[in-house]
Amino acid sequence: MKYYINKTISANFDQAVELVTEALKEEGFGVLSEINIQQKLKEKLDVNFRKYIILGACNPLNAHKALQQEDKIGTMLPCNVIVQEIGETQMEVAAVDPTASMMAVDNKELADIAGEIKTKLERVIASL
Amino acid sequence: MKYYINKTISANFDQAVELVTEALKEEGFGVLSEINIQQKLKEKLDVNFRKYIILGACNPLNAHKALQQEDKIGTMLPCNVIVQEIGETQMEVAAVDPTASMMAVDNKELADIAGEIKTKLERVIASL
Repeated sequence: MKYYINKTISANFDQAVELVTEALKEEGFGVLSEINIQQKLKEKLDVNFRKYIILGACNPLNAHKALQQEDKIGTMLPCNVIVQEIGETQMEVAAVDPTASMMAVDNKELADIAGEIKTKLERVIASL
Repeated sequence: MKYYINKTISANFDQAVELVTEALKEEGFGVLSEINIQQKLKEKLDVNFRKYIILGACNPLNAHKALQQEDKIGTMLPCNVIVQEIGETQMEVAAVDPTASMMAVDNKELADIAGEIKTKLERVIASL
């Protein structure tokens, strides 16, 4: 099963992160965390890795609904969107498909919310 | 399918977060992100929610191995551990089961890594 929604765009890395952040905002997602994988792997393992960032995106209304359905769903929040370098001006953007990451959760109401969030994330990626 | 590993402990909220952070460190996980759900829901929706935090835990060696197997697995990283208030001195701690969150990913090598991380997270929770 495909567990992400992705697209390759022409932009440099910083532009791509800015574009994604703006597109997320348009659909009501704030970015609550940013993990710079390239930097962390260099710092912790002295490994050279391509540019790669994990943005933790959260739509507060949907997050609140999900937490009311499943009190431990925070273990699967926020929804991550990654930006990784393919070439100098080619970046791949991929958002998690929450219906895939949450498929082990046996809760119909939660599945409906995950479906709504997936639709929003598809719009975010399509808009890039 | 149960998608988390959990335990209720006697501690106040701040103590619990500190205990979890220390226990994660013992197993090689750093905390790369902290999302204070109570605060965010108050700020964004003016909703009163119990104390609830999402800690993004990452073991750099395992993360690097996972990224080499699946270049878009960052959409499912880091592994979250939540702490939520049950009572004033009763906190529930729950770590995601990465074999559950990653079950949609069709990759045997990744599944093996997820299994290793699950074992480490089980030790973290058991040690509390």
